[in-house]
Amino acid sequence: SISQDIDHILETLSALAVDLGGTNLRIAIVSMKGEIVKKYVQPNPKTYEDRIELILKMCVEAASEAVTLNCRILGVGISTGGRVNPHEGVVLHSTKLIQEWSSVDLRTPLSDTLHLPVWVDNDGNCASLAERKFGQGKGVEDFVTVITGTGIGGGLIHHNELVHGSSFCAGELGHIMVAFDGPECMCGSHGCVEAYASGIALQREAKKLHDDDQLVVEGMSLKNDECVTAVHLIQAAKLGNSKASNILKTAGTALGIGIVNILHTINPSLVILSGVLANQYINAVKEVIRQRGLASVQGVNVVVSNLSDPALLGAASMVLDYTTRRTY
Amino acid sequence: SISQDIDHILETLSALAVDLGGTNLRIAIVSMKGEIVKKYVQPNPKTYEDRIELILKMCVEAASEAVTLNCRILGVGISTGGRVNPHEGVVLHSTKLIQEWSSVDLRTPLSDTLHLPVWVDNDGNCASLAERKFGQGKGVEDFVTVITGTGIGGGLIHHNELVHGSSFCAGELGHIMVAFDGPECMCGSHGCVEAYASGIALQREAKKLHDDDQLVVEGMSLKNDECVTAVHLIQAAKLGNSKASNILKTAGTALGIGIVNILHTINPSLVILSGVLANQYINAVKEVIRQRGLASVQGVNVVVSNLSDPALLGAASMVLDYTTRRTY
Ligand SMILES: [Ca+2]
Ligand SMILES: [Ca+2]
Ligand SMILES: [Zn+2]
Ligand SMILES: [Zn+2]
Repeated sequence: SISQDIDHILETLSALAVDLGGTNLRIAIVSMKGEIVKKYVQPNPKTYEDRIELILKMCVEAASEAVTLNCRILGVGISTGGRVNPHEGVVLHSTKLIQEWSSVDLRTPLSDTLHLPVWVDNDGNCASLAERKFGQGKGVEDFVTVITGTGIGGGLIHHNELVHGSSFCAGELGHIMVAFDGPECMCGSHGCVEAYASGIALQREAKKLHDDDQLVVEGMSLKNDECVTAVHLIQAAKLGNSKASNILKTAGTALGIGIVNILHTINPSLVILSGVLANQYINAVKEVIRQRGLASVQGVNVVVSNLSDPALLGAASMVLDYTTRRTY
Repeated sequence: SISQDIDHILETLSALAVDLGGTNLRIAIVSMKGEIVKKYVQPNPKTYEDRIELILKMCVEAASEAVTLNCRILGVGISTGGRVNPHEGVVLHSTKLIQEWSSVDLRTPLSDTLHLPVWVDNDGNCASLAERKFGQGKGVEDFVTVITGTGIGGGLIHHNELVHGSSFCAGELGHIMVAFDGPECMCGSHGCVEAYASGIALQREAKKLHDDDQLVVEGMSLKNDECVTAVHLIQAAKLGNSKASNILKTAGTALGIGIVNILHTINPSLVILSGVLANQYINAVKEVIRQRGLASVQGVNVVVSNLSDPALLGAASMVLDYTTRRTY
């Protein structure tokens, strides 16, 4: 019947989602229901040319594989670090976390090569879109997403809509400053939340400790050629390394103060923490809100995201939402 | 003619505006054009009973005088420190800056006594409404107002509308924190912008200097019984007192960091500074934005308000806007 035909078509509608992070370049085929049908991961190249070339290559491969997987690709959604003009599909400016990534037109090369419509937005904004469509932000009028990964990103939903700001710089929550001085940040400032609490900030502190032979404690091993990361710092703290614990405590306090600042600015009803460090920080964030937030913000709900991959799902949601708006 | 009659009626339409600040209680008759026809000022009483009594007394007097001034009062607009539920006309909670000022229903006693509709909102929010209707925020889609007076307040306009937040705590910009520690704030936290840069914070530092005999320098005089205030600190700095200068520099940096945090959160195109200290701080704010703001926020416009009395005009605008919406 026609009805069954339409059901079948809807089931096969999919998006190609791209996530450009400080560490990896990831591409996925995402179904209308938010299922990641297939995912491709590569290290994010360090130069503009290599990066664009790899994005195109991976997208062409994924689009071709989508056909064999019975997925009908409606368009490409790209989540990237840095400020993005979503109307133009252009990365305006990025911090040093992603090098050679300013004034980059992503829409033109991708739509020329793939013959598909292309949407682009900031990674934190994409994570918020994912929470709105598939996650704990569903039906919540005003909420904030804070992503703690290699860097720290964020996105704001106000009256059910993403806030881009007057120059596409809203939701740059990693660059909220919580100190007059404080550690140097990738953005050129210092004392930013990202400079205290991001994966790269914890790695910097872990390396410092390791250089002083103060990282490794009993019960943990680190090979000579192994790269020291935030994971080692967290492991050391769990095994009783008080220096590592203090670094993590400072990081949690910085993130907590940053989030209280957001509450006192736009007062959302929900804060969603995502990224690999979300579980690490949630209790510290709640404690700082309790200790330093105004009485009127104490009712805020703070949760860890239950989405497998907010940036990819958000990138996909730009494609899927636009298509459903047009189709129905 | 009928047309002239209507013109005459429009010219006489007015609001009773009330401003409840950390220092004074002020009431004004405000015309539709934003002219303050008459103003009444008293010190803001320290107890709830005295305060309510004085508000009622002054409003009754002003309403009666309005008749003789040929002003037709359409309603009462109240601007107050603290968090306000504008739907209910209730002050939810205030910091210690205004004592005995939590869970206070302002609408009921005022409308019962004056037989007029009553609107209530936070002072920073009212200042933003004033800028939108009468000031430099006219026609600007996204802007922020920061008021530096006895305390520090703020208000956000997003897509031409005031942002109240999920629990009426949006725009509490004085309680953005810029330090892990930092001076104690009236709100119970510490390191808030208000604890560095408000009139009361500068007074606290001026008193400390004076107690150490380090405030008064050549060219300035301070009588024995004179109350030391922020004005003396500013005067001393101008006359070459480097300790006073450093305190003001720290205050300006704190305010600047707080404002950069706002830019990185909601990215307005315009920041309007108002209150007695606005001129004192504008250059420091611009400098901190230049040094520590992301490239994408450098285009923000930062100005000093050109309104005589934003809180009173904003209180009036709640009455005037509502009435015009209903009439036309
Ligand atoms: Ca963002
Ligand atoms: Ca406010
Ligand atoms: Zn930064
Ligand atoms: Zn405070």
